[in-house]
Amino acid sequence: MSIPALRWIDPPAGPAIELLDQTRLPAAETIVTCTDVPALVDSIRRLVVRGAPLLGIAGAFGVALAAARGDDVATATEALARARPTAVNLGWGARRALAAYQRACLAERDAPLAALREARSIAEADARACARMAELGLALVPAGARILTHCNTGALVTAGDGTAFGLALAAHRAGMLKMLYVDETRPLLQGSRLTAYEAGRAGIPHAVLADAAAASLMAAGEVDLVVVGADRIAADGSVANKVGTYGLAVLARHHEVPFVVVAPVSTIDFGTADGASIAIEQRSPDEVTHLAGQPVAPTDTGAYNPAFDVTPPALISAIVTESMVIQPVTAGNLRVLNQGT
Amino acid sequence: MSIPALRWIDPPAGPAIELLDQTRLPAAETIVTCTDVPALVDSIRRLVVRGAPLLGIAGAFGVALAAARGDDVATATEALARARPTAVNLGWGARRALAAYQRACLAERDAPLAALREARSIAEADARACARMAELGLALVPAGARILTHCNTGALVTAGDGTAFGLALAAHRAGMLKMLYVDETRPLLQGSRLTAYEAGRAGIPHAVLADAAAASLMAAGEVDLVVVGADRIAADGSVANKVGTYGLAVLARHHEVPFVVVAPVSTIDFGTADGASIAIEQRSPDEVTHLAGQPVAPTDTGAYNPAFDVTPPALISAIVTESMVIQPVTAGNLRVLNQGT
Repeated sequence: MSIPALRWIDPPAGPAIELLDQTRLPAAETIVTCTDVPALVDSIRRLVVRGAPLLGIAGAFGVALAAARGDDVATATEALARARPTAVNLGWGARRALAAYQRACLAERDAPLAALREARSIAEADARACARMAELGLALVPAGARILTHCNTGALVTAGDGTAFGLALAAHRAGMLKMLYVDETRPLLQGSRLTAYEAGRAGIPHAVLADAAAASLMAAGEVDLVVVGADRIAADGSVANKVGTYGLAVLARHHEVPFVVVAPVSTIDFGTADGASIAIEQRSPDEVTHLAGQPVAPTDTGAYNPAFDVTPPALISAIVTESMVIQPVTAGNLRVLNQGT
Repeated sequence: MSIPALRWIDPPAGPAIELLDQTRLPAAETIVTCTDVPALVDSIRRLVVRGAPLLGIAGAFGVALAAARGDDVATATEALARARPTAVNLGWGARRALAAYQRACLAERDAPLAALREARSIAEADARACARMAELGLALVPAGARILTHCNTGALVTAGDGTAFGLALAAHRAGMLKMLYVDETRPLLQGSRLTAYEAGRAGIPHAVLADAAAASLMAAGEVDLVVVGADRIAADGSVANKVGTYGLAVLARHHEVPFVVVAPVSTIDFGTADGASIAIEQRSPDEVTHLAGQPVAPTDTGAYNPAFDVTPPALISAIVTESMVIQPVTAGNLRVLNQGT
């Protein structure tokens, strides 16, 4: 990716965070510059920056930004953690930077620098995690694989090659990928806008499809593996991810196609017991009733528009993390990963 | 519906067929006037006029138009039957008008008038069939029903109140409908553009949703019944309908929600043995990669874009026709309907 999804700008031009505006891709590569936390929170809400791992990084850099400006860092952390309710990484990244800041304060070291270093360390660890998840996940990919994916999970949402997309890319590089099928992912079309953009740049053979066409693609025997990311994983292995993921899991089970989740350990929220406990963000009906600013439904049509859905562990073949592959997906198998957090 | 979806215009203004341009709804109510069969075939291909029952009526009026103009009626019938490969009603309606025309020729009666009368008779029978399907289908609707539907199946695609939509409307009028959930139905958004338009005009409580959100709606226990139409039903009860229907059927089975197809007997093609024998129309990738003329994917992105999918009989709770409710859906139970055709 020639333009990074998120970039820290030091003084004198900064402190600031530059974001590649993902709402405008692929039509335009526009940079949004956030010079304070409220601007960053607004960008997070508008999905200028999005995707679980990158939100963790954005949360940490947001705290570093507040620290560099001399703003109240605890307040900034809370504002960032609350910007979107489902993504656990956001609060996780922000609180890690806050903890580094607070430790430095107590030790009378340079606290803003400590927060920034923690943010950079999170980004570097994320890049390594992407590489390791792809390496571990490759064992689950058959030769000549036709992979179906949903939403966008590549370099636009991580500091590396991505989660689910990173695995598809690794399979492509290993000569094992025949085709990447990309759900367009309504309402915001992250699949056709962003994943197709990343697949095209990486030279991966790919085709987009309406989300509702995934079922007949599976029935035709054209899908060997479904691979998706995760926005939050509960302690029982329930996975909250972009709306449509759960339906794909049901379809995959019906067609006996393996369904694999690729997500870093930071996505697992051991404080959330199960799927029913995950708060699901409801977004504006306008996302469904309008497209690119144009109405596609009569004025005042109501819409059901959850951003995410929850897939129960029984429908998930494996969760690939940077530490290990969880298979089968059970609370007991996940608990092993709770030691390091 | 104040503006009919299809209207025959007699001389001196005609002969012509006026179509309400469904590609422009709900933004604009525009009339397309077809003065010959090639213009009508073009309108059918562009989906100006669409939907299984209305295509049957359009096919018959198309033959009447050729006859009134003195064109070759057999050639016109073939052109109309081939305009879209999956919709069986198109050829069925055209051939019925052709047969009436040929009988009148042999009897030395006014053959163009006979073709027109047959077309009108098909439209009247369709309106009666809609009323009867709604009456019979109502027995399958629980009180306070929350119905999920896909695509558009109302007065825009029939000469009456519709097939699946007609049943929802009857349930609404009977005070039995709590909510009509409308899949937006990508890529062409017949749900959000057309069904929401018809539901709004009829005063039916409704909400649209991205197709991929149907799974979580069912998981939340918010759907009591899925009701869809059909473009072609094979002799074994396999149903070809708008892409996404099959996925809904799999999801309905997983969530133990009844899945009901409402379609007139003319939709059943006893000459097609099973689902695998149904030709599925593949449409332009542009329908997926563009929206309202705007690209939503990078240039040259490929797309998998079948117009329809096939739902096997085992996933269908019942098929409601104007003659009877087929339940369970088996070749033997369907065969009873083959006597009248």
